[in-house]
Amino acid sequence: MDSALKSLVVLGSTGSIGRQTLDVVRSLRDRFRIMGLAAGRNLTALEQQVREFAPRWVGSESEDDYAHLKSALGASAPAWATMEEMASHPDVDVVVVATAGKTGLLPTLAALRAGKIVALANKEVLVMAGHLVTEAAETGHGQLRPIDSEHSAVWQCLWGENHSSISRVILTASGGAFRDRSLDDLRRVTAEEALRHPTWRMGRKVTVDSATLLNKGFEAIEARWLFGVPFRNIEIVLHRQSIVHSLVEFRDGSIKAQIGIPDMRLPIQCALCYPERLACPSVTRLDLARVGSLEFTVPDMRRFPCLRLALEAGARGGTYPAVLAAADEVAVEHFLAGRLGFMEIAAVLDGALGAHRPNGDVSLPAVLEADAWARAWAEDRVGAKT
Amino acid sequence: MDSALKSLVVLGSTGSIGRQTLDVVRSLRDRFRIMGLAAGRNLTALEQQVREFAPRWVGSESEDDYAHLKSALGASAPAWATMEEMASHPDVDVVVVATAGKTGLLPTLAALRAGKIVALANKEVLVMAGHLVTEAAETGHGQLRPIDSEHSAVWQCLWGENHSSISRVILTASGGAFRDRSLDDLRRVTAEEALRHPTWRMGRKVTVDSATLLNKGFEAIEARWLFGVPFRNIEIVLHRQSIVHSLVEFRDGSIKAQIGIPDMRLPIQCALCYPERLACPSVTRLDLARVGSLEFTVPDMRRFPCLRLALEAGARGGTYPAVLAAADEVAVEHFLAGRLGFMEIAAVLDGALGAHRPNGDVSLPAVLEADAWARAWAEDRVGAKT
Repeated sequence: MDSALKSLVVLGSTGSIGRQTLDVVRSLRDRFRIMGLAAGRNLTALEQQVREFAPRWVGSESEDDYAHLKSALGASAPAWATMEEMASHPDVDVVVVATAGKTGLLPTLAALRAGKIVALANKEVLVMAGHLVTEAAETGHGQLRPIDSEHSAVWQCLWGENHSSISRVILTASGGAFRDRSLDDLRRVTAEEALRHPTWRMGRKVTVDSATLLNKGFEAIEARWLFGVPFRNIEIVLHRQSIVHSLVEFRDGSIKAQIGIPDMRLPIQCALCYPERLACPSVTRLDLARVGSLEFTVPDMRRFPCLRLALEAGARGGTYPAVLAAADEVAVEHFLAGRLGFMEIAAVLDGALGAHRPNGDVSLPAVLEADAWARAWAEDRVGAKT
Repeated sequence: MDSALKSLVVLGSTGSIGRQTLDVVRSLRDRFRIMGLAAGRNLTALEQQVREFAPRWVGSESEDDYAHLKSALGASAPAWATMEEMASHPDVDVVVVATAGKTGLLPTLAALRAGKIVALANKEVLVMAGHLVTEAAETGHGQLRPIDSEHSAVWQCLWGENHSSISRVILTASGGAFRDRSLDDLRRVTAEEALRHPTWRMGRKVTVDSATLLNKGFEAIEARWLFGVPFRNIEIVLHRQSIVHSLVEFRDGSIKAQIGIPDMRLPIQCALCYPERLACPSVTRLDLARVGSLEFTVPDMRRFPCLRLALEAGARGGTYPAVLAAADEVAVEHFLAGRLGFMEIAAVLDGALGAHRPNGDVSLPAVLEADAWARAWAEDRVGAKT
C-alpha cells in the first residue's frame, strides 16, 4: 500500500544502528522509503547505501566528501543536505538518529520541532539536553521513540499503561566486558580487551562506556526524560544474560519485563512500526528452558565508579550530565589510544564534575558551553598526566 | 466519589480467592460496594462477611443454611438469592466467580449474557465450556477478566497490544509440591504431602491439581479461550520461583512477562480496577537482585502424565476437557480420602478420556452430560479398584 509508505531519514547510516536500520527497512520495503542518509567518514559504505536505497538527499561530514560521492555516483547522486535540513523537511515522517556523541543533538531538536517521529539511538542527545529535547517534542508535537534495547523494553512495557502509574524503572546491565574482573585487574586492562563486549556488537565508544558501566548511568538519565520518571525511581540491576532487556514496576506492585534474544533489529523495528508489531523472521526466538537461568545482582560501584558518577550527575541535573558526557568522550578517546588507564576514565569524569561551576542557565548555548568547557578541561587533565 | 462506586457480587466468598477479594475491597471501600455474597458450607465465615459488608443478597448451598443465617443475623439478614440471580441483576457491575468445580459455570454464563464484567477464578468454567463462555460474552457484551495469576500475567502483557500479534503464550508452572520427586517416590506420596504447595496457599483441590500439574493443563485450555490463541501456540515452562507469572511472545519475537512476589491480591485488584492501576501497599515489592536467579526448565511429562493428558484433551477440544475436569474432581476426592494413589489420578483421567465417545454436540446440555458421564465413570473405576 503506497498510502502507508513512510518516508525515513537515517542519520548515522553507516554505524552499527544505522546499518541495522537499513536491514529492517530492506525487509519492510512496502512500508518505508529512505529519503535521506547521513554518515560520517565511511564514504565507501555510504556510497553503497546510496546506490541501494536511492535517497533524495545525502549528507556527510564535509563538502569534499560530497564531491567525492558525486563523482563516484554521477548523475544519480542525491542532493546534498545537512542533517537538520533532512530531519525537518516536510516530506519526512520518521527520523532515525543513530549518530554518536553530540552530533545528533541539533537534528533531533529540529526534527521534534517539525513534528516528526524521532527514533533515537544517540544516547548523548538526551544525556546532554533531555530538558530541551522533551520541550522541543512538546512544542512541535514531535514523538520521541527509543531504539536502545533497554529503553525500548521500558517503552514496550508501557504500551497500554498510564505513565503516572509507574513506580520504578529497572534498567538491566550486562555488566560489560569486565564484569568479572577484580579492581586490581581493572587498573591494567587494555582498550583491546574493553572492546570485547560479551553480548552486543556496537561502536567502539559505546563498548568502552559499557565496560565502565557509564553507559548504564547515561541510560538512567535518558530514561528520566523518555518516561518522565523521577530520577530516584530509576534503578540498575546487573543481568549478565542480557535476555531481560529492562523492567517497569507499577504502583500496584506489578512488574512487566520485555525479554528476548539480544538483537537490535527488534527495537529498531518497534520504533519504526509502532503501534503495529510486524513479523521479524530474522530475530531468533527465545527458548527459556534452554537459557535455563536468568541472574540478577547489584552493580559494584567500587569497581565501576563511572556508574556512580553518572547517577550523581543525573541526580544533580542541569549541565552536569552534559559535562559528564563531554569529559567521557575525551577520556574514552585517550583510553582507546592507550594514553589513559581504564580506571583513570572515572578520575577524569570525577575531576570535570568537581570543577564544573554551573550558573543555573540550562539553555542550548549554556549546554553547548558546558560541553566545550568539559572537553577542554578533560584534554588539559589528560595532557597534564601524559 | 460515589459515582465511581462499583457494585460487586462475590461467588465463593469464603474460599481462598473469595476472602482475598474481600481483602482488596476492604482496602478500596470508596470504589466498591458488595451487593451479594455466596458461599458453600462455611456458614460461620459467611455470617461474619455478611456482618462486615452488609450485602443486599446472600446465597448458600441450601435453604436450611439460609434459615440458620437468618436466625443468627435477625432483621439485618440480607435477602436470599441464587448465584445466577445475583450475577445477572441489573444493579450489579462486576461478578467475581471464585467458586470451585463446575458450580461457577451457570452464574458465569448468566453474568456475561447480562453484560457484566466477570472476574473469573474458577478454572473449570473455561475448561468445561470455554466455547459457551466466550459466546455468552460476545452475545451479551460481557467482559471476561482473569484472576488466576498466570492468566492475569498474560492479560497484563496484552494491555495496549493487538491480540492478533500474539505468537506464543508461555505459562509458567511452579511445579507443585512434588516437582523434585522421582517417579518411584510419586507412587507413594500422600494427600497430606500433596497439600504442601511450595508457593501458593490455595484450596485443597487446586493444590492437588497443582501437584499433578493437571492445573497447568487446565490453564492452557483456559488461555486458549481467554486470549483466542490456537492451542498449539500455548507452552508450559517450569519456573520454580513463581516470580515470572507468565509470558507472551509477539510475532516480532518480542516477549513480555509479568513479574512479582506471588500475591493473589494483585491479580484480583487488576481484574476489579482495570484499566486503572491503584496502589496496593500490602503487596511486597520484588527485589530482583535478592531473588538472584530465575530458573526455567521443561516439564517432565513422564512424572506428570496429568499434564500430558490435559494438553491432549485441550487439543482434541469438544467435550474432552469437560470429561477431564469431571474425572479429575472425582479422582482427587478419592486421593484426598486416601482411596487412590497419586499416580492413579492420571490413570483415572486416561481411562475416562479413552472411554469417552463424543457425538459432536458441544451445547451446554451435552457438556453437562459429558460431565455427569465422566463422574460416574470415574466413581465406577475407583470403586472397582478399592
